[in-house]
Amino acid sequence: MQAAILRFSADGYDAASVDDVCNEAGVSKGAFYYHFSSKRALFLALLQDWLSTLETAMASAREPTVPETLVRMTRMLPVAMASAQNRLGMWLEFWLQASRDKEIWKATIAPYRHYRDFFRQLIERGIAEGTFKQVDADATAQAILSLAVGLFLQSVLDPKGADWQHTAEQSMQILMAGLRQPAVRAVRVGGSR
Amino acid sequence: MQAAILRFSADGYDAASVDDVCNEAGVSKGAFYYHFSSKRALFLALLQDWLSTLETAMASAREPTVPETLVRMTRMLPVAMASAQNRLGMWLEFWLQASRDKEIWKATIAPYRHYRDFFRQLIERGIAEGTFKQVDADATAQAILSLAVGLFLQSVLDPKGADWQHTAEQSMQILMAGLRQPAVRAVRVGGSR
Repeated sequence: MQAAILRFSADGYDAASVDDVCNEAGVSKGAFYYHFSSKRALFLALLQDWLSTLETAMASAREPTVPETLVRMTRMLPVAMASAQNRLGMWLEFWLQASRDKEIWKATIAPYRHYRDFFRQLIERGIAEGTFKQVDADATAQAILSLAVGLFLQSVLDPKGADWQHTAEQSMQILMAGLRQPAVRAVRVGGSR
Repeated sequence: MQAAILRFSADGYDAASVDDVCNEAGVSKGAFYYHFSSKRALFLALLQDWLSTLETAMASAREPTVPETLVRMTRMLPVAMASAQNRLGMWLEFWLQASRDKEIWKATIAPYRHYRDFFRQLIERGIAEGTFKQVDADATAQAILSLAVGLFLQSVLDPKGADWQHTAEQSMQILMAGLRQPAVRAVRVGGSR
């Protein structure tokens, strides 16, 4: 898989062949096809691997409360950005191919739905612990996911357009402000500020 | 430009030549090059045209207050989705080429910064009219833009994954809740709900 990232990034997804990847990795084609049914399957495995790494990092972010945990997660953006930066061309090429093939497309978008579940569970935990209002957990999860996708996309497309980590943290704080328990807010509003 | 959309969507951005577009439009190559310096310039003009149409529609959305106006704007998502749906392949192809050329890339991402200004001015109006707290207008604009980009991207990639218009409206409501004047909120919190 490391060899595939190297070849796909350097030569492009179209131009890099299974032969090239095997040569880079020093493995036989037999060994390749034992693990992957095709170049597309290899790419999907790379995508899955990247998403799993992100999710493991997200799941390990733990602060005392869910709102703090969500803000903490925005600190992962620079890492996600860095790993995507040099691979933008490779990804666009793959999506282009995927957009013309229904089955591949399904596999490509499946992770989004998975992430929505991840955030929904987190929001439900926030409601249970009393930091969040009784919000619609699914809609809220979707809002967080959309914000994350948008921030990620813009940061990769325009890395110098903003201080993205700061922007992500502020955006999440703004979103959190609307989700917090009114009781807690009311105390703060009436407090020293 | 209509002929270009037709040919790029049907044949792909790479495969469709300036000749093809001229034939479709029934114009000479001389006439083409009088208006556009290259196929890329034509594509950038299409992109600009699409973004201008969106912005005109956004600027015409006027409700009594800024928060209501922003929620109203989410009703444009289905229109934006529909116009992007059949052109996804064409866009991915263009972005792929753009990602390999710095100048084209700059022209491609310029609209994002422009939209951020648009939303910043709207937030400033909301602060001036007293519906929004004294929030950081630029950070808030970026949060709204990221949310919009994320919703748009996900809705185009996975049109059946959710009721996107409903999702967009709910997401915007959630974001708005954190921006509204605390005084107004406090009244509501202590009110009939």
